Amino acid sequence: MSSFSIGVDLGGTNLRVAAYTRASGLLETILLPTRLSAGRHAVVEDMCHAIRKLLSAYSVQHELIGVGIGTPGPLELPAGRLHNPPNLPGWDGFELRVEVEACLDMPVTVESDANVAALAECILGSGNTLGIDSLCMLTLGTGIGSGIILNGKIWHGTHGMAGEAGHTNIWPDGPACGCGSNGCLEMYASATAVRRIALESAQSGKAPAIAALATKKPDFTTRDLADLAESGSPDAQKVFDDVGRALGIGIGDLVNTLNLPLYVVGGGLANAWNLFSPALFQETTHRSYVYRLTEPGSAVLNGNMNTGTRIIAAELGAESGLLGACILPYTLSEQKTAGTPDTTLR
Amino acid sequence: MSSFSIGVDLGGTNLRVAAYTRASGLLETILLPTRLSAGRHAVVEDMCHAIRKLLSAYSVQHELIGVGIGTPGPLELPAGRLHNPPNLPGWDGFELRVEVEACLDMPVTVESDANVAALAECILGSGNTLGIDSLCMLTLGTGIGSGIILNGKIWHGTHGMAGEAGHTNIWPDGPACGCGSNGCLEMYASATAVRRIALESAQSGKAPAIAALATKKPDFTTRDLADLAESGSPDAQKVFDDVGRALGIGIGDLVNTLNLPLYVVGGGLANAWNLFSPALFQETTHRSYVYRLTEPGSAVLNGNMNTGTRIIAAELGAESGLLGACILPYTLSEQKTAGTPDTTLR
Repeated sequence: MSSFSIGVDLGGTNLRVAAYTRASGLLETILLPTRLSAGRHAVVEDMCHAIRKLLSAYSVQHELIGVGIGTPGPLELPAGRLHNPPNLPGWDGFELRVEVEACLDMPVTVESDANVAALAECILGSGNTLGIDSLCMLTLGTGIGSGIILNGKIWHGTHGMAGEAGHTNIWPDGPACGCGSNGCLEMYASATAVRRIALESAQSGKAPAIAALATKKPDFTTRDLADLAESGSPDAQKVFDDVGRALGIGIGDLVNTLNLPLYVVGGGLANAWNLFSPALFQETTHRSYVYRLTEPGSAVLNGNMNTGTRIIAAELGAESGLLGACILPYTLSEQKTAGTPDTTLR
Repeated sequence: MSSFSIGVDLGGTNLRVAAYTRASGLLETILLPTRLSAGRHAVVEDMCHAIRKLLSAYSVQHELIGVGIGTPGPLELPAGRLHNPPNLPGWDGFELRVEVEACLDMPVTVESDANVAALAECILGSGNTLGIDSLCMLTLGTGIGSGIILNGKIWHGTHGMAGEAGHTNIWPDGPACGCGSNGCLEMYASATAVRRIALESAQSGKAPAIAALATKKPDFTTRDLADLAESGSPDAQKVFDDVGRALGIGIGDLVNTLNLPLYVVGGGLANAWNLFSPALFQETTHRSYVYRLTEPGSAVLNGNMNTGTRIIAAELGAESGLLGACILPYTLSEQKTAGTPDTTLR
């Protein structure tokens, strides 16, 4: 009997639950609103109800390999306990893993949403395409999520909180970040930040094209701003240059510290890759001598282009979080078989 | 027959070669000047001559387990090739491993000096004391070296260049760093930086006590400045506050990205730990929510103080580089025995 998994993408707005097989991908996806106002136990019940529906539908033909759940963090592992997650207000201290396991009466695996997105990109996306199984992925959305995959496994660190590169310092005296610090990468390269920076430049009087956009469409999106830049507006292009510069500084730090083979930029804002990536590459080249030594075509590689440090846009789109939750049980099962060590630190 | 190793600490000024056993530590150390002006082959010959002396002296009673060499970087691994190392001018492209192996007619292991210092601190220093085998160590010297140890092994990354946290961004528009970037941690918290910042404050006219020191002793050391701060000079204390703030920002980034259990500050400037650590802790607490969640005594730990994120001064002193080179062959031998995977990435 072939195996299947169930994956859950728990977001602050939507709850997606899917059945998945390695051979066929997503068999069926159940899309629900995340009923935050009804309380966390109601959300867990909605989630478990959908999981049970998929279990009964697919357990006849397939054997369940496991249930994986991606959740907004901070998430403490191995406990599976949430710590004041900004996207799940009121869930501080919630024992997500324990609660879902009690509701389903079976074990589940819980991971942060940024980690499962990185896992999907590594195993099903650009990592697979390039034959690379270690990467750091930055997901540019409302905030900036980030996950690190080392040799095919999520890097957890000691408390399950490794990979929070969205809160890398860019400008120490920059705008106050939701994390409590100032001037984090998230304050310069998230979709929220792009709108804030665009509005600031409009209000300064120096960006008339953006001011016109904001007047015509006060709730303009980063897509609208990208269209404006693509139509030739230097004001709008400058906003994306600033995004690229901040990302270039943050990724430069990651290259110097981690020396991974692959850095992937995903999330909705990654659609504007062509607008911000020139500034990104310019800045990472300036910031990181490890990058200069190891970028494709550089001295260290001795002509072997395949072993360089790459920085690219994600291949997978908005479903990376759901796909990552689905493949999580598969990777854990394979790790048990192969006897490879956990990437949690002692 | 008990085993011994030979370790080499190759510096820009001194060349130290030692014989070592696990039971007795350093058996004998040969201290030589690094004859950079005589050329790199002369330095390799000096090194190999000392290694052969120790080999013939100790091979009678002990079995050689291997030769480990710590060198200033950037060092490409596994090739063992240097890339324009600032502390070894003229050595760009030098095949250090190949050259030493040809001279000795036996295999040797080459590592960056910051990595072997971190390995020594992990296995023989604070890691051993605390029962922790993963850490990041920053060595504050002329520059800032840095190494990461994960589960007892040096973290190499793809090209052997991981762990360059001395070049983490602090202020993007800060002073030009030797690495080609601006405002790196090294520009604020190395011994060189401390002297520069102190002289700048003296020249500004706002730090009369430092100006008096600089007049009396133009080549004053960081130790002199620390003495001034300890004697109650607020001007001198401010310099160390600034060091602590920069270190706190850099370590905050490392905590958020790596979530390791231990961060160690070593090197000569770490003697001023009591002067700069209050600002360091204040800043890391502000910068890193992962630190706030996991510092000893925090919520995540559930009363288990032993599993918190610690930031401490190094236990080992100036010999950590030499000791690390000596224990390198032992750790490699144990890894082969245990079959643990390499920490080089694919």
